[in-house]
Amino acid sequence: PMVADQAFAGAKKARAGNASYYGARFHGRRTANGERFNMNAMTAAHKSLPFGTKVRVTNRRNGKSVVVRINDRGPYAHGRVIDLSKAAAARIGMVRSGTAPVKIDIL
Amino acid sequence: PMVADQAFAGAKKARAGNASYYGARFHGRRTANGERFNMNAMTAAHKSLPFGTKVRVTNRRNGKSVVVRINDRGPYAHGRVIDLSKAAAARIGMVRSGTAPVKIDIL
Repeated sequence: PMVADQAFAGAKKARAGNASYYGARFHGRRTANGERFNMNAMTAAHKSLPFGTKVRVTNRRNGKSVVVRINDRGPYAHGRVIDLSKAAAARIGMVRSGTAPVKIDIL
Repeated sequence: PMVADQAFAGAKKARAGNASYYGARFHGRRTANGERFNMNAMTAAHKSLPFGTKVRVTNRRNGKSVVVRINDRGPYAHGRVIDLSKAAAARIGMVRSGTAPVKIDIL
């Protein structure tokens, strides 16, 4: 059906915006889906994607990418589309800057 | 009076424990004292010290220290005594590690 197909197409589309990250301050605390946050795991917080969704996050400054699993809710800042674990942020080279423009592809 | 002197002496004593930091994820959000968190300012979150208190935080791994003003509440993790802004964490060389053993001197 038309509506469902469009929704599906929309869900698979790439999204763009800024990423930030979180680490030791939250290590061991519960995420929104009830896991314990592990700053060394490849996970991320997103406002609306279902928990368990895997997305590829690409740093548009350097082309580096990482695959993360959504297990938390956020971000809270304007223009922010995803909050990565510190390990995922390190993988795409954004620990020093703290934020980066990213592309998000839902896998 | 004895009791007051003891309390004062206690308040000025150094404290030791671990520090972590927070940055871009919270930049612009309200801290516990109602300011907007600025990850580039020399501030920190502490469980109980009055807002406005200035403390010197020394990284026991490298001897580097920074003076921060308490403007937020935390940390939440076991054994953690202070959460620094990212700029303060950078000043004492603990951004990569994420945590560091520190000494806290109340100024």
